[in-house]
Parts: sequence; C-alpha cells; structure tokens
Amino acid sequence: MTQYKIPNATIKRLPLYHRYFQFLKDSDKKKISSTELAEAVQVDSATIRRDFSYFGSLGKRGYGYEVEPMLDFFKRLLKQDKTSPIALIGVGHLGNALLNYNFSQTNNIKIVAAFDNNPEIIGQKINDILVSDMQDLTNLLQAQKIDVAILTVPATSSQKVADQLVQAGIKGILNFSPIRLATPPAVRVHNVDLANELQTLIYFLDNYR
Amino acid sequence: MTQYKIPNATIKRLPLYHRYFQFLKDSDKKKISSTELAEAVQVDSATIRRDFSYFGSLGKRGYGYEVEPMLDFFKRLLKQDKTSPIALIGVGHLGNALLNYNFSQTNNIKIVAAFDNNPEIIGQKINDILVSDMQDLTNLLQAQKIDVAILTVPATSSQKVADQLVQAGIKGILNFSPIRLATPPAVRVHNVDLANELQTLIYFLDNYR
Repeated sequence: MTQYKIPNATIKRLPLYHRYFQFLKDSDKKKISSTELAEAVQVDSATIRRDFSYFGSLGKRGYGYEVEPMLDFFKRLLKQDKTSPIALIGVGHLGNALLNYNFSQTNNIKIVAAFDNNPEIIGQKINDILVSDMQDLTNLLQAQKIDVAILTVPATSSQKVADQLVQAGIKGILNFSPIRLATPPAVRVHNVDLANELQTLIYFLDNYR
Repeated sequence: MTQYKIPNATIKRLPLYHRYFQFLKDSDKKKISSTELAEAVQVDSATIRRDFSYFGSLGKRGYGYEVEPMLDFFKRLLKQDKTSPIALIGVGHLGNALLNYNFSQTNNIKIVAAFDNNPEIIGQKINDILVSDMQDLTNLLQAQKIDVAILTVPATSSQKVADQLVQAGIKGILNFSPIRLATPPAVRVHNVDLANELQTLIYFLDNYR
C-alpha cells in the first residue's frame, strides 16, 4: 500500500471512520449509504470519497459501503491487532482526567504508566495505573516498551521533560502544554493546545458568521 | 481587512503567534529574527511568511519582526480587547480539569459558568466557578451573554446536550466527546477528540518513521 502521499487531514479522519464502522457493526448494521456516512461523521461525501480513494476502491458508487469489510480494512490500517502502550507524564488536573479517560473504548490505546515528581502523588493508583517517580522514567519506559507519551506537565517544565523523554527513547509525544517543543526530527510531536482551540473557535465566530 | 480567503490552517496558528509575541514582550524583547521565530513556534519560516502575508506586510525581509507592533496587531486581530465568556457543560474528570485550566494566562478567554445534571455536583464551586443545574441552562447563558460552550459530557448524551445548547442560542461548541454532533449551519463546532489524536500520532509513527 502506497501511503506516503496521503494528506495529513485524511490521516486525521481515519480513526473517525474506523470508530463509526465499529459502531455500525456493534449495532448489527450491514450496509450504509454514503449520504448516511457523511451525515454521521459530519464530513461531506466528496471528501470521504477522496479520503477513501487513497486506499484503492473502497465501496461502490451508488451502493454505499458494506460495514464488515470496511471495518476490517480500517482495523488493519490502524493496526488494531496490536495494543499501543502509552505513558502519561504529569499527573495534575488534566493528567488525572486523561488517566480516567476511556481511550480504549473503541480502539486499543492504553495508558499503562504514569509519572510525576511530586512525592504526594507518586505511589498513588489512578484508574488502576500506578504513578511512578520521574527518576524511574527511562527504566520503566524501556521495560514496558513504551514509545509514545502524553505530556501534561506545566508549561514551565515541558521542554525539560520532553528532553528527558527523548533521552529515554520516546518516539511520539502528544503535547498538551502550550509550549512548542524542540525535539530531534525522529521524534514526532502532536500538539493539543486547549486555549488555542478555544481562541480559534472564537475567531471564526467573530469573523465568519 | 479581507479575511475570507485565509486558510483554516493559518487561522489555527494565529493564537500561537499572538502568544509568542506576548511572551517576547513580557521578556522585554524588542525584536526577533524570522529564524528565531520559526524555531520558537516550530513552524517553518516560509509558512510563517505566507501566514503573515494574508494580513499585509508584517515585518521586513532580512530584518525580522518588531515585537510591540506585532503584538498589537495580533491583539487586535484576535479581539483581545474584549473578554469571551465561556460555559462548560459536564463536570466529570475532564470538565473538572478544564475548569482548573488557566485559559486566561495569555488571552482573555474565561470560563464563567459550568453545568451538570448530577445533584451531588450542582452547587459546588470549582476554581471559583459555580456548577449550575442543566435546567437553568437557557436562562443563565442568556443572562451572561455566553455564546460559546465547551462540551465535556459523556458520548451517550452529547447530541442531546448539543441540541439544548443550540436551543439556548449557543453559536460555537468546543466538543470533547467522540461523537460528531449534528447542528444547524449557523452553529460552529470544533472537535477535540483525544483518542483520535493519539491514534493519529501512532499511525504516523507506524507509517512514516
């Protein structure tokens, strides 16, 4: 499968499609029209057709999509046969919420380790996940073969902690701090910037109503 | 200012630029080179130049950017002179974390109202924000002139609550539930899908290393 030309925007929609076909399967649906699919995932059908076209001929024009083969396809594409163990760094309010978040509901992402440097938090169990000492970061990440981390530390220490994660061999960081991290090219950082999201939404409301 | 041709990707970066120039001002910096700016916000300088070009000639080639006029520009652009009051619906783990999140650190977004339907949570104050009963939603939103809401209710009730928000006159929703909401065209929904973010990051690591 040639994948290097797939636009980022398409890739970001793949989990959405996967999740919806999983929902259809769970609801015992066998088939869905492209109009219904567009309505359900709130992506227009031309975009869906273009997205799917990167992966060969999925579905037939005027017929819609068969749930089971589509689900199998997205499962394979998103490697749903293997579980991805994730670490979370920084167990403040947001870190706590993410530890309690049910990531694995429709996929096999699982936070398996959490880290903090606060002695009052270290040793606690949150949603069955033990909070470990930052000092044990490298050992524990390597022992558990974790290469993706969620970063929910304060802005003031996020770059320092990111450096530690890179040192420990982490390959991907989901960064919730409002700082843009400097990392080597081999380490991929995705940013979830909550204030930014709100401000962008408000900008659109102010300017495009 | 002509704004209707600005790409969404550019708009999403505006708060980032604004925040960084604010940081420079707070650090008493007067000027920054385009290379330094690119490094700091982790956006390549060609993209920065293109982003800025939508707003006329900001900065001079080979000279860099003067902090104060740039900050003033972004402040005006992002309407930082007015405060945007926000409501949060659904005070679970994530809602709680967002109520404790310091949105107003570098901008004037402020959560001023929170709602839940759980009698044990209603009446609590979290980070000085009173949690009100969902039954008072319409009255309180209108009294406080709130037209943006953060939605952190469980997936099973997010569409129902979104319908109530639309009824109450909300114009923008930042949706954290993994459900894509159906809303009238006049209501803008931005989605922050945490499982999706993680899955996309893992997809990139698996396929583009």
